[in-house]
Amino acid sequence: MNRAATSSLAVVYEPITENLSQVQGEIFKLLSTSNDLIAQVVKYFFSSTGKQLRPALCLLGANFGKPNWMEAIRIAASFEIFHSATLIHDDIIDGSILRRNLPTVPNKWGPQISVLVGDYLHNCAMHAVYSTHNDRLVSLFIDTAAQVCDGEILEVKENHNFDLTEAQYFSIIEKKTAALMAACVEAGGIAGKLSAEECSALKKYGVYFGTAFQIVDDCLDFSGDTESFGKRPGADAESGVLTLPLIRLLNLVPANKKSEVFGAFKSYGTGDRVEYLVRLMKEYDTLNFALEKAEEYTDKARLELSTFKDSPSKDSLISLLDYVLKRSR
Amino acid sequence: MNRAATSSLAVVYEPITENLSQVQGEIFKLLSTSNDLIAQVVKYFFSSTGKQLRPALCLLGANFGKPNWMEAIRIAASFEIFHSATLIHDDIIDGSILRRNLPTVPNKWGPQISVLVGDYLHNCAMHAVYSTHNDRLVSLFIDTAAQVCDGEILEVKENHNFDLTEAQYFSIIEKKTAALMAACVEAGGIAGKLSAEECSALKKYGVYFGTAFQIVDDCLDFSGDTESFGKRPGADAESGVLTLPLIRLLNLVPANKKSEVFGAFKSYGTGDRVEYLVRLMKEYDTLNFALEKAEEYTDKARLELSTFKDSPSKDSLISLLDYVLKRSR
Repeated sequence: MNRAATSSLAVVYEPITENLSQVQGEIFKLLSTSNDLIAQVVKYFFSSTGKQLRPALCLLGANFGKPNWMEAIRIAASFEIFHSATLIHDDIIDGSILRRNLPTVPNKWGPQISVLVGDYLHNCAMHAVYSTHNDRLVSLFIDTAAQVCDGEILEVKENHNFDLTEAQYFSIIEKKTAALMAACVEAGGIAGKLSAEECSALKKYGVYFGTAFQIVDDCLDFSGDTESFGKRPGADAESGVLTLPLIRLLNLVPANKKSEVFGAFKSYGTGDRVEYLVRLMKEYDTLNFALEKAEEYTDKARLELSTFKDSPSKDSLISLLDYVLKRSR
Repeated sequence: MNRAATSSLAVVYEPITENLSQVQGEIFKLLSTSNDLIAQVVKYFFSSTGKQLRPALCLLGANFGKPNWMEAIRIAASFEIFHSATLIHDDIIDGSILRRNLPTVPNKWGPQISVLVGDYLHNCAMHAVYSTHNDRLVSLFIDTAAQVCDGEILEVKENHNFDLTEAQYFSIIEKKTAALMAACVEAGGIAGKLSAEECSALKKYGVYFGTAFQIVDDCLDFSGDTESFGKRPGADAESGVLTLPLIRLLNLVPANKKSEVFGAFKSYGTGDRVEYLVRLMKEYDTLNFALEKAEEYTDKARLELSTFKDSPSKDSLISLLDYVLKRSR
């Protein structure tokens, strides 16, 4: 993440700065272990914090109400740990070599350790959520874990499926990305003892926010640069994942050009295929099409916040929507 | 598993035959999904039932008391699903090609799908246990999942560590194998509403039973044949896991022979290395040493059952101890 993005997030996180600063410590506390190999991987992985979007969503949600902050911080840490488990398993699946500008866990420790550390993190997150003895939070966590996993399996299943529709794409990203973000902000609402209606509004905000976030991420996979993106662009495309700008392109190009696009996508990353595809996407304006879709989702997310009266947390959730769209520019 | 072993287990399972026959259906119910790729893997993996030791332990434990059988069957199914998740992840880790005489899931679907299906099964098992709303069962499940994972990480960490002590070996197998078997039989006791003392006796029985089971399994890795063992012998040795017969051998051979043993172990599976190691193990009687250790553990397990008055379930748990020892003969 580049410095400008970090500082703009710091402003957005203002209302929860103090509590957010405790999440990292809570994570290390929840993951403390006498197994020194796990301890080593945990220290490595969590020493760079990333954007902390999920814990921030959780704490901003909580900040609308009167939470037990200890519980809210624990939940924020648990969801971040769970998210990390999925990232480590993803990096095995995609064969990724870089994350947050550092070698991935599978790249450093191999797939064996990575499978098990992912399992370990998942177990710890579950344990931590359960320790709150809050039934709604436990149910939410279990359901969300299942949805994320389902979304990821769908994604792998649809690898290289050039007939993937936009509707299928949205269904996959809602499960694999948006469901977890929605759960974070909803869990915050639950921890903050908000009404059912308010929790539901936060959840919907999270679904729309997460969908927009993933669309932008998918555009950056084609147009981003490694340093500010934190991972190597083109990684999704190389592992055969079809995303919105490409699906749109396949819908727009004339039939006789499709096989050329297929070929470029299949051998993405070699020769001038990247350039060729990005040029076509610009010609058919599909990156902009995708970003406009993302904006539609941020608009829907903003609308959900009308349930709440003005507050610093509400301002932050609105600013987060702008942040997501700006990442792409 | 060969036919003789199956029929002897059928006799052991007599007191719970009817309920055990429902576990398979419960598993498919708990794992039903609209994701047809998962459904396909689930159908493939669970169509061969294996020995059903863990569900049987659970139901035999429950049969000491007056369980809600629906709950007991659900718990038995959940632990079997969780066990299956660990098997699928293990098969990625070990690169195994055969399990229950069939190609492993990673062999058939690749590591990507296998990581995710393992996660899916783990999620479903957690969900099912949670649905019992029995706090003690949920805690037991979460703690056990963490222990199993910890044991597996320790095992991978100690790969090719030729200084591994017997004590370290026992600590690893207690976590990676015995903890789950102990949890199954203890969970049965909890579902059967047994006293704390009785549950604790069942748990200890399970730890000793599981330890003996793993020692025998480790001996079969050197001396078993593929057809009756269900997986290719030598697989553990090839992936660098040191087990009791080898650790004992390293303690017994003269110092100048150690490097030869190391070398044979490191290149196990190639040329005449298997023969060489097994011959040495016979010369130093280390397979028998290990099996005698296993027998010590089954003796300890039997002793724990003295808490219970005579009953068909007690007879079955005793017969299971004989079954474990006989597997090796």
